[in-house]
Amino acid sequence: MSEFSIPSEVQAQFDSHELVAAIAQDAQSSEVLMLAWMNRESLELTLATGEVTYWSRSRQELWRKGATSGHIQKVHSISYDCDGDALLLKVEQNGAACHTGERSCFYREIKR
Amino acid sequence: MSEFSIPSEVQAQFDSHELVAAIAQDAQSSEVLMLAWMNRESLELTLATGEVTYWSRSRQELWRKGATSGHIQKVHSISYDCDGDALLLKVEQNGAACHTGERSCFYREIKR
Repeated sequence: MSEFSIPSEVQAQFDSHELVAAIAQDAQSSEVLMLAWMNRESLELTLATGEVTYWSRSRQELWRKGATSGHIQKVHSISYDCDGDALLLKVEQNGAACHTGERSCFYREIKR
Repeated sequence: MSEFSIPSEVQAQFDSHELVAAIAQDAQSSEVLMLAWMNRESLELTLATGEVTYWSRSRQELWRKGATSGHIQKVHSISYDCDGDALLLKVEQNGAACHTGERSCFYREIKR
């Protein structure tokens, strides 16, 4: 999948066997939906297919978002941060992002 | 600072000596500004002061955002995700969030 150029800062993370954090944000509403993780293969699959695949740290396997629930995420854009260890994915979210059924995983507030 | 109740899911992370990821989002524009990390003390300081303090993984010290640059982040709200290992901070960002001078750290896009 060499037609996609993964930036060198992000490559460096993968070369160090580090994951990158991936923030999914609703491309229309700008709501932050979830935070998950990507390894090189999941980012390559995401770029190649236009649908988001994460790396599940708990299951230690590729996690094609929505594979079982149908709650897929179509990619609008992917940005990377200044030190290359975090990605911002603007997505079109089908249904709920959260496994609880909530639209966003960040549905509870810390009271001050 | 026991007047603030840190949710048990988030406490569990700290009890396991894990950091939590902290996404900063502009409370007005909804732009995602940066991703950083918090330990228990940084979250307590953030809740107590109303201004964001992170934990710097590279320097292994508390990092009061804007302490040197003046680019402080005032807290509007803090949410936590379904598994308690990520926070979403809606903030009022003074100046640039990124050390490069860009408003957001996610200023570069991966071309597809």
